Amino acid sequence: MLIECVPNVSEGRRAEIIAAMVEAIRQVSGVRVLDVSSDASHNRSVLTLVGDAAGVERDVLVRVERAVADIDLRTHRGEHPRLGAVDVVPFIPIEGVTMADCAALSRKVGAVVAERYGVPVYLYEEASTNPARKNLEDIRRGEFEGLTAKMTTPGWAPDFGPSAPHPSAGASVVGARMPLIAYNINLATDRLDVAKQIASAIRQSSGGFRYVKAMGVTLADRGIVQVSMNLSNFEKTPLARVFEAVKREAARYGVAILESEIVGLVPSAALSGAAEFYLQLGNFRADQVLETKLRQLG
Amino acid sequence: MLIECVPNVSEGRRAEIIAAMVEAIRQVSGVRVLDVSSDASHNRSVLTLVGDAAGVERDVLVRVERAVADIDLRTHRGEHPRLGAVDVVPFIPIEGVTMADCAALSRKVGAVVAERYGVPVYLYEEASTNPARKNLEDIRRGEFEGLTAKMTTPGWAPDFGPSAPHPSAGASVVGARMPLIAYNINLATDRLDVAKQIASAIRQSSGGFRYVKAMGVTLADRGIVQVSMNLSNFEKTPLARVFEAVKREAARYGVAILESEIVGLVPSAALSGAAEFYLQLGNFRADQVLETKLRQLG
Repeated sequence: MLIECVPNVSEGRRAEIIAAMVEAIRQVSGVRVLDVSSDASHNRSVLTLVGDAAGVERDVLVRVERAVADIDLRTHRGEHPRLGAVDVVPFIPIEGVTMADCAALSRKVGAVVAERYGVPVYLYEEASTNPARKNLEDIRRGEFEGLTAKMTTPGWAPDFGPSAPHPSAGASVVGARMPLIAYNINLATDRLDVAKQIASAIRQSSGGFRYVKAMGVTLADRGIVQVSMNLSNFEKTPLARVFEAVKREAARYGVAILESEIVGLVPSAALSGAAEFYLQLGNFRADQVLETKLRQLG
Repeated sequence: MLIECVPNVSEGRRAEIIAAMVEAIRQVSGVRVLDVSSDASHNRSVLTLVGDAAGVERDVLVRVERAVADIDLRTHRGEHPRLGAVDVVPFIPIEGVTMADCAALSRKVGAVVAERYGVPVYLYEEASTNPARKNLEDIRRGEFEGLTAKMTTPGWAPDFGPSAPHPSAGASVVGARMPLIAYNINLATDRLDVAKQIASAIRQSSGGFRYVKAMGVTLADRGIVQVSMNLSNFEKTPLARVFEAVKREAARYGVAILESEIVGLVPSAALSGAAEFYLQLGNFRADQVLETKLRQLG
């Protein structure tokens, strides 16, 4: 069983705290760290971990314990919106585990975090049972500074824990979601208007695909433009469908696709899904992939 | 490090010998069994194992030891050509290991098999240093029954071991090759002549791709025809190139592709290669695949 966990922690400047954060992961059994990205201007670190349910649960508890000790939101400044010391914790199903399992894990971990550390927890995305509280931006609106007032507003009592913020650690948002894929398509043109038109055509906010965020940007050093995207559910809005839509929209302006790129990590299933589509693979099973079969053997 | 090893053993009928063969693998550390296919009419079993270099080496030695004890080629009958009790042992690089590593492993294991069990060993494919002795069919021509004569023919001394066959276990062929992919493309027609023309166009033997074997067959129960293929090097003749060539050839007869299918196992890299091609992925690295990165961490 593989669950990805991507805790967003409100510390991106103090090297010794970040180093201790990473070292703490290495002490936790059943979980591996794939990536650590710290951003000083955001004053935030994003950890990417993978493990089984027990491993990621242990890690989150260690993470909250340390953050409560080391981070004080009352003096924390940074460009990125945040509610708490361990700001957001998504659990992401990768293999041998369902979204429902990850939602259940969110509730279990949320309850323990609230009880053990006195940090109120909001559930989000697939773990949320309240349609008005699925979206992370909605939950985080007002940030730490507005949290005391927000928590007493009708409809904004937390899912677990006290009805007021933890004095220094605020609140945490815990939930389950699909893996995010950062996917860019470079166009063989320098016409920014074309990239913007295509981004507008394919993103959800303006009538496009349900799980696509997109914007058109210029890559000045290369003299080309790019449709820069986040895909938030590659099962329901697959890479191939997005690629083909961008290609068709670009052709309408007489523009070709130069190349596409995946930034960071991508689940194997997102790539094999594209292969299945283009090769018209029928009756393909995930356990026909040699490496997947091998992992299933344990 | 992942090496696949596919020993072909000359026993496909006696259930107790086959069961003991499989049980023996489970006793070997550093190797896992992915598949066992026994064919009574061939009187042959094909084992698919994966492990590190030490694991697959240990397994091959156990395999030869048991086969020398249990199998007697002097009384062995079956439809499939064979030279020995452990007839063929290919080592196949899957991850974190090169073809050159697998060729070196073939030589190391070949020398030990010859010395320890008195079974002469021929190296084949990428492990062979003799261009006339790369091809398995050439080495196996004459079979066990012709082996004594063949081994005294100029140019046919074995790479390791005695210059005469082991009395009961014959000789073994050990080498390194790429994974085989059994890949079929179903056409939206019942015209067998079209499938045969396409197979002829794409297979090496009649001028097509270097690493493709192909034939046209009828799927009578579905009322369609199929181009049935073996791809012996997906890096040099990739799935996508073969699929596109078949599609184009079929279009020349007004025929569309209904679907394609992969039979059995496929390395993850063969599928991600197809995704890279169709999505025009630039600068993609294998360690961007989450599961690959995780395996690299060990």
